[in-house]
Amino acid sequence: MRKIKVCVVVASRANYGRVKFLLKALQENVDIELQILVGASLLLERFGKAINVMKEDGFEPNKAIYYTVEGETLITQAKSTGMGIIELATAFDELAPDYVVTVADRYETMATAISATYMNIPLIHLQGGEVSGNIDDRVRHAITKLADFHFVATEKSRERVIRMGEHESSVFNFGCPAMDVIASCDKSISNEHMKKYGGVGSEVDWSKPYILMIQHPVTTSYGDGFSQVESTLNALQKFESVQKVVLWPNADAGGEDVAKGIRTFREKNMSDNFHFYKNFSAEDFIRVLNNAVCAIGNSSSFLREGEFLGVPAVVIGDRQNLREHGENAIFTNYNEEEIFKALKKQIKHGRYVQGRVFGTGDAGKRIAEIIPTLKANLLKPMTY
Amino acid sequence: MRKIKVCVVVASRANYGRVKFLLKALQENVDIELQILVGASLLLERFGKAINVMKEDGFEPNKAIYYTVEGETLITQAKSTGMGIIELATAFDELAPDYVVTVADRYETMATAISATYMNIPLIHLQGGEVSGNIDDRVRHAITKLADFHFVATEKSRERVIRMGEHESSVFNFGCPAMDVIASCDKSISNEHMKKYGGVGSEVDWSKPYILMIQHPVTTSYGDGFSQVESTLNALQKFESVQKVVLWPNADAGGEDVAKGIRTFREKNMSDNFHFYKNFSAEDFIRVLNNAVCAIGNSSSFLREGEFLGVPAVVIGDRQNLREHGENAIFTNYNEEEIFKALKKQIKHGRYVQGRVFGTGDAGKRIAEIIPTLKANLLKPMTY
Amino acid sequence: MRKIKVCVVVASRANYGRVKFLLKALQENVDIELQILVGASLLLERFGKAINVMKEDGFEPNKAIYYTVEGETLITQAKSTGMGIIELATAFDELAPDYVVTVADRYETMATAISATYMNIPLIHLQGGEVSGNIDDRVRHAITKLADFHFVATEKSRERVIRMGEHESSVFNFGCPAMDVIASCDKSISNEHMKKYGGVGSEVDWSKPYILMIQHPVTTSYGDGFSQVESTLNALQKFESVQKVVLWPNADAGGEDVAKGIRTFREKNMSDNFHFYKNFSAEDFIRVLNNAVCAIGNSSSFLREGEFLGVPAVVIGDRQNLREHGENAIFTNYNEEEIFKALKKQIKHGRYVQGRVFGTGDAGKRIAEIIPTLKANLLKPMTY
Amino acid sequence: MRKIKVCVVVASRANYGRVKFLLKALQENVDIELQILVGASLLLERFGKAINVMKEDGFEPNKAIYYTVEGETLITQAKSTGMGIIELATAFDELAPDYVVTVADRYETMATAISATYMNIPLIHLQGGEVSGNIDDRVRHAITKLADFHFVATEKSRERVIRMGEHESSVFNFGCPAMDVIASCDKSISNEHMKKYGGVGSEVDWSKPYILMIQHPVTTSYGDGFSQVESTLNALQKFESVQKVVLWPNADAGGEDVAKGIRTFREKNMSDNFHFYKNFSAEDFIRVLNNAVCAIGNSSSFLREGEFLGVPAVVIGDRQNLREHGENAIFTNYNEEEIFKALKKQIKHGRYVQGRVFGTGDAGKRIAEIIPTLKANLLKPMTY
Repeated sequence: MRKIKVCVVVASRANYGRVKFLLKALQENVDIELQILVGASLLLERFGKAINVMKEDGFEPNKAIYYTVEGETLITQAKSTGMGIIELATAFDELAPDYVVTVADRYETMATAISATYMNIPLIHLQGGEVSGNIDDRVRHAITKLADFHFVATEKSRERVIRMGEHESSVFNFGCPAMDVIASCDKSISNEHMKKYGGVGSEVDWSKPYILMIQHPVTTSYGDGFSQVESTLNALQKFESVQKVVLWPNADAGGEDVAKGIRTFREKNMSDNFHFYKNFSAEDFIRVLNNAVCAIGNSSSFLREGEFLGVPAVVIGDRQNLREHGENAIFTNYNEEEIFKALKKQIKHGRYVQGRVFGTGDAGKRIAEIIPTLKANLLKPMTY
Repeated sequence: MRKIKVCVVVASRANYGRVKFLLKALQENVDIELQILVGASLLLERFGKAINVMKEDGFEPNKAIYYTVEGETLITQAKSTGMGIIELATAFDELAPDYVVTVADRYETMATAISATYMNIPLIHLQGGEVSGNIDDRVRHAITKLADFHFVATEKSRERVIRMGEHESSVFNFGCPAMDVIASCDKSISNEHMKKYGGVGSEVDWSKPYILMIQHPVTTSYGDGFSQVESTLNALQKFESVQKVVLWPNADAGGEDVAKGIRTFREKNMSDNFHFYKNFSAEDFIRVLNNAVCAIGNSSSFLREGEFLGVPAVVIGDRQNLREHGENAIFTNYNEEEIFKALKKQIKHGRYVQGRVFGTGDAGKRIAEIIPTLKANLLKPMTY
Repeated sequence: MRKIKVCVVVASRANYGRVKFLLKALQENVDIELQILVGASLLLERFGKAINVMKEDGFEPNKAIYYTVEGETLITQAKSTGMGIIELATAFDELAPDYVVTVADRYETMATAISATYMNIPLIHLQGGEVSGNIDDRVRHAITKLADFHFVATEKSRERVIRMGEHESSVFNFGCPAMDVIASCDKSISNEHMKKYGGVGSEVDWSKPYILMIQHPVTTSYGDGFSQVESTLNALQKFESVQKVVLWPNADAGGEDVAKGIRTFREKNMSDNFHFYKNFSAEDFIRVLNNAVCAIGNSSSFLREGEFLGVPAVVIGDRQNLREHGENAIFTNYNEEEIFKALKKQIKHGRYVQGRVFGTGDAGKRIAEIIPTLKANLLKPMTY
Repeated sequence: MRKIKVCVVVASRANYGRVKFLLKALQENVDIELQILVGASLLLERFGKAINVMKEDGFEPNKAIYYTVEGETLITQAKSTGMGIIELATAFDELAPDYVVTVADRYETMATAISATYMNIPLIHLQGGEVSGNIDDRVRHAITKLADFHFVATEKSRERVIRMGEHESSVFNFGCPAMDVIASCDKSISNEHMKKYGGVGSEVDWSKPYILMIQHPVTTSYGDGFSQVESTLNALQKFESVQKVVLWPNADAGGEDVAKGIRTFREKNMSDNFHFYKNFSAEDFIRVLNNAVCAIGNSSSFLREGEFLGVPAVVIGDRQNLREHGENAIFTNYNEEEIFKALKKQIKHGRYVQGRVFGTGDAGKRIAEIIPTLKANLLKPMTY
């Protein structure tokens, strides 16, 4: 029997963290021929070249494509999407997959969805149906309407996708494959293990308390990134005795603003117990998150992986404010004082009970198992 | 008070026919500064360069952009979408509109929607919520999820858009602006009036009975265009005494197949009362449709304008088979014999009573009036 | 020993005619692995889809790429070049050739040259050093300065390339590979053989006298194509008793103008012994050229293949007016009367003695033989 | 009288340094309407966003375009060129200049030259005819063959351009406009003046001796950037008591390699009297160069501005090894020991007599004066 060709597009380090266990499960499935297409920020030095981590993990991409138009303004984000479609069309034409798999809601995801749609290749979408209360929502839902099959991460997401007119039989809630990484991995941390990460700033003692900060640009308030990150950093600085581990933002429009805010702060506050990193491997990120006394910023990982692990989190701004979440998170605005109070409260509370809103840690395996049984219908009639 | 800048993207002759009265109404509205952006097949000789008709009608485009990657394969359709996004982003950046208006469901529409979304410009979508039973559906619904405001053409479309999670207050059913053209125009036809259209083949006597044929490629059965159009043409040939007026297909993937089928047939059957046209002005198309004894093919105009006018129609294949429709249409497959029978039946039936499924002919005016009152919210929360 | 990978880019039917025997020779050379990359108008229905002829001749392309931005204005020609570079870079990256071969002077050639240059792949240029007195000259000479090796077609071209600063050892005059086709092929013509070509217009009796017309747009007088081709057609019409065989123009900016001129003339003069063709296979084109009583227009083939065969030619306008040529050609401007006189004179003169300005018909073989001995130096120092 | 529209494309900080006085002269010329088009790395945060300096100098760009495909591999350099052509074509179409001005030899220059050529806009090229012994040469000479007018910087360059077949009357040697900046500016340096530049590393005392280092990637030895820059930095480190001022490399393929080499070195040697800068304004760069005890690396500014000023320079590798130069430079390979010796020798020698190989400092003014008198001929016949 001919193997089913499944092409997974991985276009950022965050994407990779989410699909790693799915890639493994697809690789091991005898009915499936896995095709890996890597692109965009996953390949770029400036974003930690996560492709290298991926290769070390045993995933050799079939194709690597570059389509990021540099600039990090709104116009370059649009143009990057256009370039993505142009480049992906060539790759899909040559790989001729039976299914294309895309994850989440960023411009790379949209480029993948559009290209697969016009190439008449059935599209599998991971993490549809979620609601985060920011502009990514419309992109995520648009991709749902382009996709043939939906592997959602929560029950509410499943309901939402179905209400949007997708057939119940095409929507599967196996949880988020990012939880698979957490469920299976060693979550302990040590200086020995972490010393491979250079970073800039004073040295971290991973056996001592630290706060983890990740703050991405918010595309709807484009231009405010600088002041937003400044508030967070100022609030953090008040916890003088606690170490602060800061990750660089992603490549959205506005990314340079946030990065500049961090750089400016860093130059002024070099000695203040702050440490700056480009990225960690997916596994090491879990170690870092799991052992933080608190996570702060606007990374969706705080509400997902953080919930699964029970890590206290302070979530700032409206980037995630409607996203489904468990008990571990407190929400706040960009006010320095409020951020400070929320942080204090969470540090006092300490560890939460582990949640299962985002699945039980076997999503990748279950998705891989069901793919060979799918039957795509390009006409995909709506249910109403 | 600052005028509201409304940028309408017109990218095909079909699009122009639909927005003509909206353009007029926007042009006349004192609170609005109309920006017109033309592109793709509207500019191309091969598709009748409808831009010229538009200019004669008094619409001077602010920008004309070329982004059709020639080839009419799936891959060039994808690449054209990518190029469209790249080119539109530049245009939107320079025109800086308050709203972008896009129509229907083709790749040019998708390019417009994506580009406006990433440029953070509120998007107004015309003709969302419809269901046609073909692959355009998923594109149309995806655009609905990207759009801020929806001017739908029927009540069922309105319901569908709302069920997809759009706020009731953002969805307006003023009918289809294409009906405006029909309601207001002189619908009579004469040889005198029509002689300006050259065409290829024997001469048409417009005062005598004729059948109108329009058959577009069907993207899901890519590669079958040739045989599909052949069946229709063969069936038509059996009505020896009736004149046959054939329009060239649009620029979808597969367009060349259909065009080739027509050319091949034409070379063999030059004398058989067939006449071939590239295109008509929007008004003249209505004359031609209105006075046809029957319309045949798969143009959605048969179910829309045709219904409004009461013209008998034979609709072939699955391109339109789920589309909302009135009494005037009979549906059939690609079988020559069945097409023949349906045609015979419709010719015998003659004229239908005029329908109002697609509005009352004042959509353009009503849309233009309401635009200055809209309040966009880029976060656009879902209703569930 | 590792085979040397030679990638030939073929992007129009004219290109194919020129490299056909080189492709054969490369295919047969045991030291060489031939890679064929096809693109642009070679793939397009509108230009006769010459890729099909190529496949029938036994050449299976490694990759087919689309990059023609439709429009045939100056801006689309520029954008097509840009798209060409983008698409070719991907293809070169995957094929990883040791040499890229490109032919002549059109925008597809430039795209190939630029892409190979930035990908650090040594470039072999065919037909450099010629001077045609039109805007293609600057493109051709620019490609010479980008290329590593030059296989020129005439002695004067060789001198010119060397004077431009290229090392003598990198310039080879083996003649034009297009002559190879002529030297080896059956050049007779018959109705039996030619009936496969449909064409539009009255039927040709290939055993009787006919004039061959090919008129391409001239990019420097963009916009005049219509009237230019009209003069030629009017002059031709005066030779009532002689058959006229007309070929469609190529895809340069202005191509639609010329095509429209031909179409307009055709519609008015359908019965006047004119016959219109999209294209012929490279071999059949030679038959048609060889047996014409005279060739007229501005195709460079008249000065090259025509000279080799001794066919009388009337060359119109400045598209070729500085090009090297033999005895067979008379030059004229766009004046109908002068064209008429020149035609009359040439028809009276009849056949010329065969010339050897463009080689002896074994270029392909000699080029293929020498390629494995080449040593590229990316620094390519100038000789002065 | 209609003003002549002259569009200068500025696409990197180096470009800006070279054309600044030309821009001023064009701005002041009553017969000329200056159009400024900025793009590529000039706009990017990562390369110091030199657009801001330009605006402060009173130059408001007509258009800013983004076309850098991020990645800094060979393939992204090719794709950036393609994107550049696509974006520039739109800009040229809208600005409709009478002349396009482009500078030097990088991929942005090539994109400008190609786009102007296909848009039929006469091209003015600055700094043609030079020979640097690296891969930029072929790009520079190809641009010469595309250009209509040549403003070269040296007498030898003038001779070379003419030998390549350009008409003597189209080639002008007014010297390099970069010298204009030097001739006119205050070249003194002080801590007060320089404190606005942040930089990373220990603080510089500008009144004390310092060595200036600039090392760009060398595209022909792609991949070696890391070790190459390491040798230079190691050699520099031996001059413990002298301050070292290091500038970041440009955006060529390989740029990330060199940048990484610098970052790695920096992290290990933070305290060693090294100071790292992103960029200086054109004027401040001259101060920095003028007051250095020695310049080291492979920047062409050492051979041009350095020669004009008489600054001792050690030029490493083959990036500049054939470039015209004066007395002030010693050439060396990538060997740490040899670099060290050359540096020692130059520091001992001290200041050279000022040279005039690259002009007398009034190039911009003279170019601006002559432009209104030019007569372009798109056919541009070769001289042989």
